[in-house]
Amino acid sequence: MATKPSIPKGTRDFSPVEMAKRNYIFNTIREVFYRYGFQQIETPSMENLSTLMGKYGEEGDKLLFKIQNSGDYFSGLTDEELLSRNAAKLASKFCEKGLRYDLTVPFARYVVMHRDEITFPFKRFQIQPVWRADRPQKGRYREFYQCDADVVGSNSLLNEVELVQMIDAVFQKFGIRVSIKINNRKILTGIAEIIGEADKIVDITVAIDKLDKIGLDNVNAELASKGIPQEAIDKLQPIILLSGSNEEKIATLKNVLAASETGLKGVEESEFILKTIAGLGIQSEVELDLTLARGLNYYTGAIFEVKALDVQIGSISGGGRYDNLTGVFGMEGMSGVGISFGADRIYDVLNQLDLYPKEAVNGTQLLFVNFGEAEAAYVLPVLAQVRAAGIRAEIYPDAAKMKKQMSYANAKMVPFVAIVGENEMKEGKVMLKNMTSGEQSLVTPDELVAAING
Amino acid sequence: MATKPSIPKGTRDFSPVEMAKRNYIFNTIREVFYRYGFQQIETPSMENLSTLMGKYGEEGDKLLFKIQNSGDYFSGLTDEELLSRNAAKLASKFCEKGLRYDLTVPFARYVVMHRDEITFPFKRFQIQPVWRADRPQKGRYREFYQCDADVVGSNSLLNEVELVQMIDAVFQKFGIRVSIKINNRKILTGIAEIIGEADKIVDITVAIDKLDKIGLDNVNAELASKGIPQEAIDKLQPIILLSGSNEEKIATLKNVLAASETGLKGVEESEFILKTIAGLGIQSEVELDLTLARGLNYYTGAIFEVKALDVQIGSISGGGRYDNLTGVFGMEGMSGVGISFGADRIYDVLNQLDLYPKEAVNGTQLLFVNFGEAEAAYVLPVLAQVRAAGIRAEIYPDAAKMKKQMSYANAKMVPFVAIVGENEMKEGKVMLKNMTSGEQSLVTPDELVAAING
Repeated sequence: MATKPSIPKGTRDFSPVEMAKRNYIFNTIREVFYRYGFQQIETPSMENLSTLMGKYGEEGDKLLFKIQNSGDYFSGLTDEELLSRNAAKLASKFCEKGLRYDLTVPFARYVVMHRDEITFPFKRFQIQPVWRADRPQKGRYREFYQCDADVVGSNSLLNEVELVQMIDAVFQKFGIRVSIKINNRKILTGIAEIIGEADKIVDITVAIDKLDKIGLDNVNAELASKGIPQEAIDKLQPIILLSGSNEEKIATLKNVLAASETGLKGVEESEFILKTIAGLGIQSEVELDLTLARGLNYYTGAIFEVKALDVQIGSISGGGRYDNLTGVFGMEGMSGVGISFGADRIYDVLNQLDLYPKEAVNGTQLLFVNFGEAEAAYVLPVLAQVRAAGIRAEIYPDAAKMKKQMSYANAKMVPFVAIVGENEMKEGKVMLKNMTSGEQSLVTPDELVAAING
Repeated sequence: MATKPSIPKGTRDFSPVEMAKRNYIFNTIREVFYRYGFQQIETPSMENLSTLMGKYGEEGDKLLFKIQNSGDYFSGLTDEELLSRNAAKLASKFCEKGLRYDLTVPFARYVVMHRDEITFPFKRFQIQPVWRADRPQKGRYREFYQCDADVVGSNSLLNEVELVQMIDAVFQKFGIRVSIKINNRKILTGIAEIIGEADKIVDITVAIDKLDKIGLDNVNAELASKGIPQEAIDKLQPIILLSGSNEEKIATLKNVLAASETGLKGVEESEFILKTIAGLGIQSEVELDLTLARGLNYYTGAIFEVKALDVQIGSISGGGRYDNLTGVFGMEGMSGVGISFGADRIYDVLNQLDLYPKEAVNGTQLLFVNFGEAEAAYVLPVLAQVRAAGIRAEIYPDAAKMKKQMSYANAKMVPFVAIVGENEMKEGKVMLKNMTSGEQSLVTPDELVAAING
């Protein structure tokens, strides 16, 4: 019986034009990663559940795609266990493996397993799909690519500087104007310290972030409503109103955070990164932004986030420094810093701004029309010659009607069509048609390559 | 608790050098695919089990990796069903999705779903991992890449010709000497017809294949032992002893198969392919080989197989023509022809013959030694300049001991190291060390790029 096929919800087919665009994105990013001395690794799509479980919180465990054991997965299960119908508990009996949920945990697992062959600092990048059993919605998929670069085994702030340069280089190549926001977890900790409200960091950053929209009075009211005492809110005023250049912000923070050693350390780190970057010809605007509070349960130093300036969309890249990548696997003291590029959002931005270069498509440059066996026999050696010269070319395989062959050329957006009939064969030439201008010219096979490349 | 991590059996991590080599393989193949007008697609890693089940035989169904449904996968199951512990049957209740087993069925599903947007003939390629719950062993993995190119929607033999050209082009680029064997299902059908033993094709080809090893008498004895009557064996003699050039073989076959319309059609097709290829500058030897009997339950016309000449290993590429890609999904008459490159085996062959080009590694070309903050500050703009010129370069992030930094350079096989100390800073220069020759030279930042590219 024929079944009408479909694909699982939240997954996608990528057709040729989408693939070409995606390849352009990944190739561009990869090129920058290489340029900065990063090395690519890949890990298996499936990991042992013992590697994955408990690393993403309770919610994350639920979102793991689990793979059913092969063979008799019922063995060793009592009737009572089965009839309990405890899906979560029995899943751990039925399944030993799950699909990768992100690239970070597999990377940590990789570093631990390969520690003896890795030379640290290890600058690795990884571009692979991940899977999450999330509710699918616009822009959220159950299978999507992550694109991460990390340096582990070095505490040097030069790594942070380098990551900012890489972000700038990538988006410069794309032609996307971005603002790179940086913050530092230690500054946020310092703020919490001086106002004595360590557990309120998120509430504070959320409230401050609204200053432009709701005004100072409302921000202060919101802080009060979150249970922050008036005295602390008073102390927060210079931070809420923090503005001006990065230098001015740094100066203010040094003052406000004078009593917090951690806070000052964060200011110092940010100052170093900003100052060092300033001399390196970065084109993107880099801004110290205290409202940036991503990954607070994970990041311990610098925090990065990238916003596109010309498209309304969430952050298109982000990252930060962490203290302990591999502790959960028994290997302590492996700190690092990393960034992640959001391929799906970059795809949308490039589409909206129409920024894909024409060459990105890698499409056929020249199609030979097929008039029949004799003409095809004449064309094939010419085709081989053209291809050997680096031109992407093909012959329509069947001697179909001209109209059909031209439709094919149009559908594939082929810029040049070569027509060889009796006359051309007699003269040893090829009629070359420029599909954009409509111009036709009779050329020798040797002239063909130059005509197309020119 | 720290757990000692591992990966599922049959899966692999790919470290930087392996990744670079694999990228080289995939990029080379992709380049040829593009050159011949093929377009890339990708399909989701998971497909609905209704798409996959029943397409690979009973054994194949067992080898599918199935993904457990999210949430309460027990709902709707009676106590009796559960206690039956019927793993195979209940898997279909617990699981709706499975991991891709090959690229062909997802491609067929893709063609059916996207039929309205595809312009036929559709020349597609696809390079993605597939998963099989096979018993892992040397050279056999549970996750591995397939690398397929197919043309569907055209019966023209020019497609077969083109695929042979592509095989030749790929292995020429790799520098691997190969023999391309071709056969035709219709010839085999013709042979079975004239000897009246349609169901014995495989036995016959297996026996003929042993001629060189065991001699004619033993081949005939083996045929007899398979229940083939003496009269049929007599008729088979010219085919068993078939030898000489492709032209000679074709001539013999035309004689022997004169009474079989199908057989003659197969000979004619093979003759066309071989003759047409002959004028196209192929470097590989192309041989008509009747013992080639891969995919007989699938292929209906030409059959291809590629053997490496200088390494003992199974076939490293293969393919053929099929009649009906999409019938199982209710779309009839979609014939096509395709080839598949065995990336893992090609990897092994390139390793054994040491054929990877140096540039394939994409490694760091230049490492700046880090002597401290002042030196790093001097180096960073030079580094930015060098990178802008296209050089893959980095600075060691920490001011570690010289020995450690040089070990890092060696481990990453960096060919050039730049040393900047007080003297170099004073002179506005960089000490460039060639790590292969040991040679050192004092150069300006401007001269650096030329020195490395030269």
